[in-house]
Amino acid sequence: MLDQLKAQVCKANCDLVASGLVTLTWGNISGIDRAQGMVVIKPSGVPYADLTPDCMVVLDLGGRIVEGTLKPSSDTPTHLILYRAFEKIGGIVHTHSRHATMFAQARREIPCLGTTHADHFYGAVPVTRPLCENEVVEDYEGWTGHVIVERFAGLDPLAMPAVLVAGHAPFAWGPTVAKALDNAIALEAVAEMAIGSWKLDERTPDLEPWVLEKHYQRKHGPAAYYGQK
Amino acid sequence: MLDQLKAQVCKANCDLVASGLVTLTWGNISGIDRAQGMVVIKPSGVPYADLTPDCMVVLDLGGRIVEGTLKPSSDTPTHLILYRAFEKIGGIVHTHSRHATMFAQARREIPCLGTTHADHFYGAVPVTRPLCENEVVEDYEGWTGHVIVERFAGLDPLAMPAVLVAGHAPFAWGPTVAKALDNAIALEAVAEMAIGSWKLDERTPDLEPWVLEKHYQRKHGPAAYYGQK
Amino acid sequence: MLDQLKAQVCKANCDLVASGLVTLTWGNISGIDRAQGMVVIKPSGVPYADLTPDCMVVLDLGGRIVEGTLKPSSDTPTHLILYRAFEKIGGIVHTHSRHATMFAQARREIPCLGTTHADHFYGAVPVTRPLCENEVVEDYEGWTGHVIVERFAGLDPLAMPAVLVAGHAPFAWGPTVAKALDNAIALEAVAEMAIGSWKLDERTPDLEPWVLEKHYQRKHGPAAYYGQK
Amino acid sequence: MLDQLKAQVCKANCDLVASGLVTLTWGNISGIDRAQGMVVIKPSGVPYADLTPDCMVVLDLGGRIVEGTLKPSSDTPTHLILYRAFEKIGGIVHTHSRHATMFAQARREIPCLGTTHADHFYGAVPVTRPLCENEVVEDYEGWTGHVIVERFAGLDPLAMPAVLVAGHAPFAWGPTVAKALDNAIALEAVAEMAIGSWKLDERTPDLEPWVLEKHYQRKHGPAAYYGQK
Repeated sequence: MLDQLKAQVCKANCDLVASGLVTLTWGNISGIDRAQGMVVIKPSGVPYADLTPDCMVVLDLGGRIVEGTLKPSSDTPTHLILYRAFEKIGGIVHTHSRHATMFAQARREIPCLGTTHADHFYGAVPVTRPLCENEVVEDYEGWTGHVIVERFAGLDPLAMPAVLVAGHAPFAWGPTVAKALDNAIALEAVAEMAIGSWKLDERTPDLEPWVLEKHYQRKHGPAAYYGQK
Repeated sequence: MLDQLKAQVCKANCDLVASGLVTLTWGNISGIDRAQGMVVIKPSGVPYADLTPDCMVVLDLGGRIVEGTLKPSSDTPTHLILYRAFEKIGGIVHTHSRHATMFAQARREIPCLGTTHADHFYGAVPVTRPLCENEVVEDYEGWTGHVIVERFAGLDPLAMPAVLVAGHAPFAWGPTVAKALDNAIALEAVAEMAIGSWKLDERTPDLEPWVLEKHYQRKHGPAAYYGQK
Repeated sequence: MLDQLKAQVCKANCDLVASGLVTLTWGNISGIDRAQGMVVIKPSGVPYADLTPDCMVVLDLGGRIVEGTLKPSSDTPTHLILYRAFEKIGGIVHTHSRHATMFAQARREIPCLGTTHADHFYGAVPVTRPLCENEVVEDYEGWTGHVIVERFAGLDPLAMPAVLVAGHAPFAWGPTVAKALDNAIALEAVAEMAIGSWKLDERTPDLEPWVLEKHYQRKHGPAAYYGQK
Repeated sequence: MLDQLKAQVCKANCDLVASGLVTLTWGNISGIDRAQGMVVIKPSGVPYADLTPDCMVVLDLGGRIVEGTLKPSSDTPTHLILYRAFEKIGGIVHTHSRHATMFAQARREIPCLGTTHADHFYGAVPVTRPLCENEVVEDYEGWTGHVIVERFAGLDPLAMPAVLVAGHAPFAWGPTVAKALDNAIALEAVAEMAIGSWKLDERTPDLEPWVLEKHYQRKHGPAAYYGQK
């Protein structure tokens, strides 16, 4: 079952290495089959070079393992909470990519300073609040999901397909596994460029709202005209 | 028709990846056959690894597609305006290369701090003004071209073969497609080095004008003596 | 004798190149067989591409060469002192990796600003005191080991598997050669990200202690649940 | 004639690419046969991928081309002046490597902040004075050599095998072509790390003189014990 999704999730995890987003095993990708309500995710701590589609772990949205002999990523509870709360997303990418993590550690939003950002993220990329001690003790990975969902009150997860978890690292997502990976790659790039622009001028202005609107809509709006479709 | 130019433009687009200037599909290259008045450009949103000369789109200078089944780059109107205004250029390269984009976002010129810069750009690399809301709504990609041309009043596009579009990213060009790519690569390098020199000393002086003159002329002037010709 | 360990140490030294941690021959890795009391280490100044398991030098903990025709790394006395003082470590990695060395030169601890750090290092990574002139003259490489051991009074070397030698560079270690290399790679990453977070906000807070505890324990504690074991 | 030297110089020029020190064709390497008084240098503006030993240009120390059909590097007069003034050097490497050039543009010495630096450079790497207008007009590449030699009054070129030309870029050298390339690689690394240490603490101290002495002597002094000889 889910052969195609397992192949996609496996490939995306392997592509993480070439993308430069991961060091050691610090990253995991999952995908969901909404019709079946099944999530496919990377096994925990396995080097990317050793991954095959058959290694992937299949769970239902309640977290019960349905297929697979390996333990799923330790971040699985976070993924499941996001899939339950953000009903239109099809894939999730978690990394500790360098520049996005710098922002997460500094607990600052990534500002929208240019069209590269606007092509992917409709405004500043938000940061969660830090977790309280009792939340960490009680259910660390679950609460990581809950504070993301809490931060997204009033936000559209497809228009803002990424978040920075304070003191931790980014999560990105998208309508498909491949788009989620693209967003994770874009997130790292815009984080790096925002740091650089601020170094040049700490008062670098946010992108004009009409350019943000234009760039986002030409790629994602109903009248999108970027790409071949 | 235009087989050689299509091959050159395809190759240059593929070389973008090895050059490190592009992430995802954030870059496009075009070339022009001045005799025929035909422009060859990358199709929109197609991964570089999938490009072949036959994928390239051919348009006339008025923007009518003459050959090709794919949609041209969404930045095509910008390219066409530059070809119409800058009559001696033969190729255009648009990327979101990291350090040049940092300057574009900060809306600052790239200063000429050294001979690396002087070998390619005859002075500080200029920045356009931001676009107004009505320009963005009316014809975004067209106005992107117009503000570049506006900024180049009094400048020689072959002596200054690059520009930063405020809040967006760089465009570079040259007498040939290959030279345009070289200029895009040089632009990224001098942007990175200018940031670094400023970090070391924010009062880093501009290169002495006589050294700028010497370096530019030894590579590009009528008595150029760099290289084998 | 020690064929497996020699193969592991050779492979880890070669993996240094792919890891991006080394330039020229600036790095060396050793491993120890505790049962036999024998240390295997890279020969001095030999390019990584030329290494084979048979090149490795075998010494006892007193520094007598037991096997091998090449001279051992000039840093061998430092390795031996660490093996004698830190009885549970099985491998040591010395590099001049860029960002960790920036901290060593600035003689500043690497603060624990996020979970990436907490996954590997249980708190800020310490810096040694500088060596005095007579220590350098008397026994430079030996005293490099002694000041590390001196700095670790009251610290658990497995919970804090790295140190910065003031004005020099990092040493990392671990229960096995492979884990030591992972820690060296993690050290470089967290050093780079700490610099970046401080650039964004010089008052970036240390990670909350309960998150440090959680991340360290979920990977290393008795109830660890990261990975497949 | 000089087949071995031509092969060495060709290989070193090609190795520049893998070293990450060069962009486009911004770098050139030469070597000298002191017995014959002949210099072998890269041809001007030829891509590294196209180089073969037979492309190399052979000149005498007076600058007369003795062998080769291509034009020598435009920086040849600088190389020749250095070979005439620094009688013990056997190879010269000129690049525009990013971080060393940042220092050259900022016209600041690279301070000796750590042992990585001390292993190669016996103190801060010096910067030349800027060239005057008449020097540039009269003999640009020659005066580039003269200001380097002027700056080295009282310095031993083998103990300080590199210089930064103000507003331009570094030159490195060594007793052999291969050692010159190692020094160019080391120069770039220590430049990057010095910038990083200063970012962490602008009052980062110079390395203690006894450690500088120790590291330099253990690699280069009469009692050197680094490496296999």
